[in-house]
Amino acid sequence: MRTEYIEKLAALMKESGMDAVLISPGEELTFFTGFSPMMCERFQGLFVKQDGTCFYVCNLLYGDQLRSELGEGVPVYTWFDNDEMTEIVDGILEQQGLKGKTIGVNSTAQAFNVLDIAEKSDITFRNAKPLLEEVRIHKTLEEQEYLRQSAAIADAVFLEALDFIKPGKTEGQIMDFLFERMQARGASFVEAIVASGPNASYPHYEGRDRVIQEKDIVLLDYGCAFHEMMSDMSRTVFVGGISEYEKQLYDLVERANAASEALAKEGAWIPDIDKAAREVLDEQGLAKTLVNRVGHGIGYSTHEGPYIKQSNPRRLERGMAFSIEPGVYLSGEIGMRLEDIVMINDKGETEVLNKSPREPMVVCPIEGYHG
Amino acid sequence: MRTEYIEKLAALMKESGMDAVLISPGEELTFFTGFSPMMCERFQGLFVKQDGTCFYVCNLLYGDQLRSELGEGVPVYTWFDNDEMTEIVDGILEQQGLKGKTIGVNSTAQAFNVLDIAEKSDITFRNAKPLLEEVRIHKTLEEQEYLRQSAAIADAVFLEALDFIKPGKTEGQIMDFLFERMQARGASFVEAIVASGPNASYPHYEGRDRVIQEKDIVLLDYGCAFHEMMSDMSRTVFVGGISEYEKQLYDLVERANAASEALAKEGAWIPDIDKAAREVLDEQGLAKTLVNRVGHGIGYSTHEGPYIKQSNPRRLERGMAFSIEPGVYLSGEIGMRLEDIVMINDKGETEVLNKSPREPMVVCPIEGYHG
Repeated sequence: MRTEYIEKLAALMKESGMDAVLISPGEELTFFTGFSPMMCERFQGLFVKQDGTCFYVCNLLYGDQLRSELGEGVPVYTWFDNDEMTEIVDGILEQQGLKGKTIGVNSTAQAFNVLDIAEKSDITFRNAKPLLEEVRIHKTLEEQEYLRQSAAIADAVFLEALDFIKPGKTEGQIMDFLFERMQARGASFVEAIVASGPNASYPHYEGRDRVIQEKDIVLLDYGCAFHEMMSDMSRTVFVGGISEYEKQLYDLVERANAASEALAKEGAWIPDIDKAAREVLDEQGLAKTLVNRVGHGIGYSTHEGPYIKQSNPRRLERGMAFSIEPGVYLSGEIGMRLEDIVMINDKGETEVLNKSPREPMVVCPIEGYHG
Repeated sequence: MRTEYIEKLAALMKESGMDAVLISPGEELTFFTGFSPMMCERFQGLFVKQDGTCFYVCNLLYGDQLRSELGEGVPVYTWFDNDEMTEIVDGILEQQGLKGKTIGVNSTAQAFNVLDIAEKSDITFRNAKPLLEEVRIHKTLEEQEYLRQSAAIADAVFLEALDFIKPGKTEGQIMDFLFERMQARGASFVEAIVASGPNASYPHYEGRDRVIQEKDIVLLDYGCAFHEMMSDMSRTVFVGGISEYEKQLYDLVERANAASEALAKEGAWIPDIDKAAREVLDEQGLAKTLVNRVGHGIGYSTHEGPYIKQSNPRRLERGMAFSIEPGVYLSGEIGMRLEDIVMINDKGETEVLNKSPREPMVVCPIEGYHG
């Protein structure tokens, strides 16, 4: 159990008037407890109270497993399929002094169960996702160091990937190559998007079947966990050569990325960072193709606070780490993205953690081809 | 779009005083629309209104995909990362006449998003999972026929598996065998638990690594989709032979299963069916080891209504299909389960869809071994 983070959460609850926070299985539960069980439709979760004590509620099916995972310090209460869940939970909340109180929920809490409990036990449930993000938004010295090392793994693998990408390979083969090479360097969790040709125009492309062609664009977006700290970088690679039009678009994306990174200083107003990239893209009227935020925080998970978007009115602080990833996406035609992780370190300096080349990289050049 | 089921849902909304139902991505959305997109932390879902009309709300990132999947009839509204989501959704709900109204939620709706929307737009959200289950709780003639065929695939594969299970095979190899054989018979979705030795004592065992030993018990629990209708059966297999103690436990489980199946007639009171199995198990004081309900409905998903448990006070009706799966589980020691799918058909007759042997099956007998 990460008790120092439980204490931070308890302090934040006090500030925001929550008497407890419910953390259902998922990444947030793993962060606090070191494990996360399967979750089916049966209500379960860890309750953290404002005084820093915790208890767990689950179905009888999972009781033994939870007790052995959580150990002595955290009581585990169970309900049985033949009981009415809300009646049993009502008794538990009564015993824990939470009936009629305000309880926050994490990102995986199931609305249908929470609403049933609210009705039965007169609970006011509220969104506690921002609190759970705030708890770990300022990275410790150790977390900062692992973020650097995680980014270094991604960088090293990029250079290796440049030798691997060739016409005839599938997107899936390139993904598997990235996975293997990150794992070979000690990464414990790996993820990747490899989007080639028109597929690069979909920011969240999920396929792996297209075969790389000569003169393709290949967008790589990947990362891994190293000592629990995630990396996440994107580079756009040109197969055979780069056309004038591609060069022009790439230059725009690179300058958009540079404009946001230049503003990412301690104390910077986050909405301005999003805006800076869009202003560059709008030199060509292309800001509207950037359909997502310019960046997201990173650490124990790939997406966490602080989100780099105009609807996040706050300033950058020491210990924050986040992506800067503007792109241009012309649906079904062409897409490019340049993504680095940026960190405001403990001295208040800005570090761009990814050191991979920013210039357009051409692999397998075709003699005489300039697009 | 399954319009006949949308109409059923609309009628149920009227009865229960809901003005709309929100269906976020997952199996329930696939059921109604034929597809389900990825869901991240960004709010999205299909709203079905009491008048049977629908609209979809999602992040701009997913807008194009959703429009192409949903076609002309369903308007898709998007919000952008740089907007405050709740403000945009508030405008949409206002336009759709839903501000201040009561909206039901499905099983994947995220509590944190729903609570934020409730606060901003004065919505009363309620659990609509029971409505979504009710919509399809009575299987049509066609669904009944595919349930039979899906069960027949599982039965056929069981006989093949008896030749495959041997000391030295891993649980994972047996799982893969079940998957391949079901797929070879036309199944489009396959799932399995293979729990050997002490692992059989955990009803929801998830491993695949243990190597089968002589004198093991191997619990198989598996099924597949055939024309969208799921099968789900469990059999307990004895490697080398069966001891007197095992025979005695198995006999108890078999009689518990038979007792519940004997009661499963049109009009039967569901809590009695659960109770019947437990009464048999309690001849040996073992009802308390059955930590889950005796059964669950089945159809488009493996677990749906009607749940066969004492906290489900209703009667069996024509068209209902469900599992009967009592077991005995002595944690870390021994476990057994016997599961069939039972259906009340359109004539009101009870059909046990699984025809696999009920007697204890011994594979690779050891000469002279009787436990």
